[in-house]
Order: sequence, then structure tokens, then C-alpha cells
Amino acid sequence: MTATEPQTEPEPQDDDAYSLDRRAVAAILYAVDIDDREKLTELMEPLHAADIADLLEQINAYDRTRLIRLYDREFDGEILSELDESIREEVIGILTPEVLAEAVREMDSDDVVDLVEDLDDAQQGAILGALEDADRVAVEQALSYPEYSAGRLMQREVVMAPEHWTVGQAIDHLRSTEDLPEQFYHIVLVDPRMHPVAHVTLGRLMSARRAVPLRDLTEELFKVIPVTQEEADVAYAFNQYHLISAPVVDAEGRLVGVITIDDAMIVLDEEHEEDIMRLAGVGEGSLSDRVIDTTKRRFPWLAVNLVTAVLASLVIAQFEVIIAQFVALAVLMPIVASMGGNAGTQSLTVAVRAIATRDLTGSNVWRVIRREVLVGLINGLIFAVVMGIVGILWFGSPALGYVIAVAMVINLVVAGLAGTVIPVVLDKMGVDPALASGAFVTTVTDVVGFFAFLGLAGVVLL
Amino acid sequence: MTATEPQTEPEPQDDDAYSLDRRAVAAILYAVDIDDREKLTELMEPLHAADIADLLEQINAYDRTRLIRLYDREFDGEILSELDESIREEVIGILTPEVLAEAVREMDSDDVVDLVEDLDDAQQGAILGALEDADRVAVEQALSYPEYSAGRLMQREVVMAPEHWTVGQAIDHLRSTEDLPEQFYHIVLVDPRMHPVAHVTLGRLMSARRAVPLRDLTEELFKVIPVTQEEADVAYAFNQYHLISAPVVDAEGRLVGVITIDDAMIVLDEEHEEDIMRLAGVGEGSLSDRVIDTTKRRFPWLAVNLVTAVLASLVIAQFEVIIAQFVALAVLMPIVASMGGNAGTQSLTVAVRAIATRDLTGSNVWRVIRREVLVGLINGLIFAVVMGIVGILWFGSPALGYVIAVAMVINLVVAGLAGTVIPVVLDKMGVDPALASGAFVTTVTDVVGFFAFLGLAGVVLL
Repeated sequence: MTATEPQTEPEPQDDDAYSLDRRAVAAILYAVDIDDREKLTELMEPLHAADIADLLEQINAYDRTRLIRLYDREFDGEILSELDESIREEVIGILTPEVLAEAVREMDSDDVVDLVEDLDDAQQGAILGALEDADRVAVEQALSYPEYSAGRLMQREVVMAPEHWTVGQAIDHLRSTEDLPEQFYHIVLVDPRMHPVAHVTLGRLMSARRAVPLRDLTEELFKVIPVTQEEADVAYAFNQYHLISAPVVDAEGRLVGVITIDDAMIVLDEEHEEDIMRLAGVGEGSLSDRVIDTTKRRFPWLAVNLVTAVLASLVIAQFEVIIAQFVALAVLMPIVASMGGNAGTQSLTVAVRAIATRDLTGSNVWRVIRREVLVGLINGLIFAVVMGIVGILWFGSPALGYVIAVAMVINLVVAGLAGTVIPVVLDKMGVDPALASGAFVTTVTDVVGFFAFLGLAGVVLL
Repeated sequence: MTATEPQTEPEPQDDDAYSLDRRAVAAILYAVDIDDREKLTELMEPLHAADIADLLEQINAYDRTRLIRLYDREFDGEILSELDESIREEVIGILTPEVLAEAVREMDSDDVVDLVEDLDDAQQGAILGALEDADRVAVEQALSYPEYSAGRLMQREVVMAPEHWTVGQAIDHLRSTEDLPEQFYHIVLVDPRMHPVAHVTLGRLMSARRAVPLRDLTEELFKVIPVTQEEADVAYAFNQYHLISAPVVDAEGRLVGVITIDDAMIVLDEEHEEDIMRLAGVGEGSLSDRVIDTTKRRFPWLAVNLVTAVLASLVIAQFEVIIAQFVALAVLMPIVASMGGNAGTQSLTVAVRAIATRDLTGSNVWRVIRREVLVGLINGLIFAVVMGIVGILWFGSPALGYVIAVAMVINLVVAGLAGTVIPVVLDKMGVDPALASGAFVTTVTDVVGFFAFLGLAGVVLL
């Protein structure tokens, strides 16, 4: 094998690629301990703002305060942008007014919007006050759009050209423009009423002769985003259609801004994270939240689960007489409920994600329900045989084996049905299925599981 | 309110923005039913390839075959790229060799790689055979890199320039190059040994004078990706550092390709989906899979859960004597186990995600464990009081109330501990924590829950 030949496996060090080096963190904290500003600045210098933000999130509040105080004027706006919301307010509170003002002034206006929208009024005021007039107006205008809308996400600086221009005119215009946005990928062509009609990639612009009209170079794929569209839908459109950037228009269809793929990628990431957390009943939040906030956020879901569990217990209570007679029922009954709960979670997770990705629609909902019920039936039959045999071998009672087998089939079929129907119905009712499906599905599988098992036992064993 | 003023809420129709219209699907299927090729082509014309792929995934196999046969030569390569893996082989089997050959020939080489890597040998051969020689070599070379590596993800066409060039030289070069990639955002500067040293965005290139040296325009942010790096790490880097494109290098550091943000976004999306599905014990797969495949994929996790549940039952079996005496124990015991299971799932989901996003590291693992245990303790104490009261009111037994209260605290603390420690340990052992944590954590909370509750009951009530 020559050295240039591709290797057959990713190298092992890739496993921790990009994660913060523990020794680097230790060295930084040591510099803070000995109050050595020069050393700290030197150690922080190679770190990207996103890594510095991660570092600040991972150390404790005491170290964080001392580090930020010592780092002082080196602290820049990009770190603020990258910081998790849970500690932004704390960090802003630590910065001196001068450092904060300077940090904020060097930020892009869309990043400032993202920063201030969740702050309390006093901190919001301090940051808006630090901005230059033009930037402040831009930020305030963005804040007038609904939260989580395209208007909040977009940047207002758009590179545009009249639709009748040539390549040469566009290039001359770009050369003479002082303040081009940091990142742009398309030139948006607009009609005289400022409606975006098409766009041209910079790559095609560069490779064409000066005399070519821009409209001969436009991309086939061109999606326009309404300023009030929800950011989740924007992210979906970027992901579905592989957009790189898309113009944003107001209610009259006039160009008011542009959204680029990097912003959409962040939203997509957040939406996913939210779905995972909601499915697990965790809600929003992060590792750097305080214990009390985390406790509060997890409490409601546990409370709902308690109600669910008590409901299931009420079902069990109906069968106290027979349980007292056949204690084996108490031993085996959690198995039926647990299998149902797991099968239900499988179905509901698939359904919730399919709803989120628009793969589960009116066109295929019945087929999906039928499929989930069939999957439940087949797996139910297999586990029925297994548990029937276990029941007979363990307790020497074919009747008990029969009861648990039938209850298993019933509960796994119900799990497939409830796991699909409940998210679909919640979605139709405008309730986020990721948030609410779990509790409902578990209630159904617990109640049906205990009822089927103990009820059948009452009929068969007594 | 004037018409141009931003509205205060996203418009309701946004809710279903971009999802396939049910009536459009019905019209298309009707055209298939009456065998009207012209009508079908007209109806499909406005649809993006990604939407056509979604449509094919959502209809049943019979309609899919008829639609594809009728659509015939209109079927293009982009639809193949967008199709879910689960039905790609089926669709490729339906296409006539001529249509398949033409569809494949118009695809980019990285899309062909993505298409053929999961096909069986016969279909792979048919597709490779349809390509022109240069493209086939490119695809085969890409396939020689490990699966899920940067080498598979990158496109090989890179726009580059010697590091000493000026803006004018670069622009002239672009103008004279016939076959520029469809999408590119940077010009990569290389040294004489083809090592990438920096890159310049097209935007900055366009706005500079012709005499300016390219090296005066380079971006501060410049990350180079090793060709063997895992695609998950590539996606992380794009997300963490907001990269737009990054050059890929071989073991000698020579430029071999480029990865762009749209590819990274797709990987990020897939990684997320995988994590959600693994956490729910569903594994890979999609709605368009056959019943038997879905059943097989869900079976292993249900089997693991059965073992877990039987283990918990064995614990219960140790306490048959006391359950026979106090049937209330059988009624209440699932509550303790269920609350523990839910709290454990909350903790493990947070831990699994924090590991995936590199937010949980050696620097903060102890603090996170302490936090989760504390959260478990506080919620445990609250629910202990609630359940203690329920136990007393329902069964009139303060002793029973005391037992369930103490068991609740113990199990929620253990849930916080196990929910954090188990994923961290699995990750250290090289096992995907998303895949395996659930079963372990549930086993712990079930066993501890039943043991604490019934064991305490044995001590207190007897």
C-alpha cells in the first residue's frame, strides 16, 4: 500500500476530532488561578469563538466569572453569539459595560437580534444603547417580526441587481459597493417594484463574459420565503430543496432580506434537538442550566407520568382478589405493560418524526397505521409464544402461559395502533405530537396491558 | 395597520408549507389510473425532484410501478438521488435500462456515489456501466474510501488557484474554465505541492480590484478535513464553526476534494434522525419499508426489553410471600418503577445528546452527574410526599405511604445517576450510547424500583 492510497478505516483519533482538549482546559483554568492574563490570552488565541463558548458552558460559575474578568477586553461578540442561552444573561452581567458595548458593536445585526430577543429588558436596553443608530434601527425592526419567523432569521443586507443588468454592470456594482455582506452566494434580480424574480450564483457570474445579461444565468431552483413564515418551515425548505440562500419578501412580495443555508442549518439543528428532548419529556434546556431550572422543567412530565401510573394502578386494584389468589400474576404483569410501552414508543417515534419531515400525510396515513398494527401483531405473536413458554416453565401453569400470550398480542397490536393514531390526531388538533404523544401512548399501553392480562386471568384461572 | 407592517403572527397556511398537497397527489394518481401520460407529465412538471421522491415514497408499490412506467423518459437522476434507500432498489428495478442510463449520466459524481454505495452488485454494475469512462473512474475512486468518510462525501471538482495569483488572474482563469462545478463558494489557494493554504470567498473576490493579490483576501476561518474523517465529525465541524465549504486532503495533506455545507447539512440531518430512532429502539428504516423489514428491525430491542422485564419480574418473585399478604403492594409497585424509568430516560436523553454535541466532556462530567442526582433527589422528594399521601388516603396505611415515599426517592436518585453514568461509560467503551443506554437504564430503574419498594415493605410491614 503506497502512502497516498485511501485507508480502509477512519483514523481512531477522528473519534474526538474537534472536542475540547481536557489538558487545554486545565491549562486555561490554571492561568486563571494564577491570574496570568498574558498566558490566558495566549492559550485562548487559537480557539474559535464557538469553542470558547463551549468552554465557558463546561466550567463552573465561579471559574467562569474569574475567566471572563481576566480575559476582559479580548472578549468578543462572536463568543456571545455562540453561548448557550442558559448562561448568556449571566455572562453579559459579568462583562463591564465598555467590553459589552465593544463586543456588541462588532456583531452582525442578525446576530444581535438573536442575542437580545431572550434577554430581560434592562440587558436588552443596555445592548441596544451600545449600538450605532443605523444598527439599532435594524435590530428593532427585526424584533418587530414574530418570534421564530423568517423575519427574525434573515439578514437585511441583500446583494441585488435590476433584472435587465449584464454581468459587467453587476461586477462593477459589486466593486464599487463599500459594505458588502460578509457572506453572500447569490445576486437577487428584482423588478422595478422590488419583487425578487430570480437569482444568479456568484460562480456563474464569475465565469460569464461581461456582456451576458444576468437573466441568461439565473438558477432554475428559486424559492421565495414570506417574512412571517415559521423558521421551522424555512429550515425544512432549505433541507428539502437543498437551497443555499433564499430571498425573503413582505406581504406585498417585496424583497426585505435574505436567509442563507448556515442560518437554516442552525434552526434545523435546534428543531431536531427540541424534538428529541420533547420525546423524552425533558423540554428545552441545557447542561449549563441551574439544578432548580432543570428540576422545574422535568417536573411536569414526571407529574403527568404519575397520573398515568396511578391510572394503571387503579386498573390493577380492580383485580386485587385474583392477585391475592395467584401471586404469579403480580410477578408477570409488569412484563406485558413494559413490552406494550416499548412497542408503543417505537411506533410513536416513527410517527412523530414522519410528521415532522412531512413523510406522513393524508395520502399514506391509513397504510402507515395498517403497517404499524401488522408489525405489532407479528412481534406480538412471537413474544406471545416466548412468554407462553416462560409462563409454563416458570410457574408450571399452561393456563397462565395462555393468558400472558394472549395479553401480549393484544397489547402489542394496541401499541402499534395508539403509537400512530395518537400523534396524528394530536398534530391535527394543533398540539405538538413530540411533546404530548408519549404520556397518552403509555397510558393506553399500561391500562390495556394490565386490563387484558388480569382480566383474562380472571376468566381463565378462576 | 398599514399593509407593509409586519404581522404579529405567522400566517396559518404556513403550517403546511411545503407539504405535498393531498389533492395534487389524487390528481396524479387519477392520471395514472386513466393512463394519461400527457396529463401526468403536466401535473408533475411543477414538482421539485425531492417532492416527486416523497410522492413515490408515500404511494403504494402498485401505484408506484404504474406511475414510473407511465412517467418513463421524464424520470431524471435527481429523483433517484432524493429517494429513500428503502425503495431505491425497487424503483431502479422498474426503470427501463435506457431511462436508468440517461438518468444516471446527468447526475453529479458525488450523487452517483451516494446512489450506488448501497445497491446490490448487479444494479451497481448496471449503473457504473451506464456512466462515461471519466465519471466511472471518479465514482470508483470515491467508493475506495471508507463508507461514511469525508472521501465519500466530498466532490472532487475543486476550484483552486496558486497562492501567488491576483484577483485578475483568478477571474480570467474562471472565465476560461469550461466545466466549473455547479456550486462553489470559495477559491482554494494551494502551494506548489498542492497543499491547501487558505481560501477566498467569491464575494470578496468580486469586490476587489484586479491587481489585488488573492492572499490579501483570505478568510480567517479555514479548516481542512482529512479524507478519512468520519462524516459525523465533518458535519459537527460545519455546524460548530459555521463553515460554508472546506477542502479535503489526503494523508500527505494534498488537496483531493471539497465538502460544501449542503452536504454537511444532509449528514447532520441523518445523524439526528439516527439518534432519535436509536433512542426509541427503532433502528434505521423508513415509512416505506416493508412490514417484514420493520418487524425484524424492531424485534431485537423488544427482545432486549423482554429480558429486562423478566429480570424485574425475578426481583418481584422474591417477594411473593409479602405480596400475597398485602396486595396493595402489587397495585402500587408499578408506580415506583414507572417514575424511575421516566426520570432515567430524561437523564439519559440529555446525556446522550450532550455526548453527541461534545458538550459533555471530561471537564464537566462530575458536575453533570452531581446535577442529575440532585435533580433526581429534589423531584424524588416532591413525588415522595405526593405518593406518601396517596398511599395513606387510598389504603389507609401510613406505613405503606412511608414505604412508597422512600422507594420513590431512592429510585429517582438512582435514575439520575444511572441515566448519566451509563451513557458516559458506554461512550468510553466505544458503544453508541444512543443505541444501548435505554435498556440498561430501564433495567436499573426497574430492578432498583421493585427491590427498594418491596424490600422496604418487607422490613416495615411484616
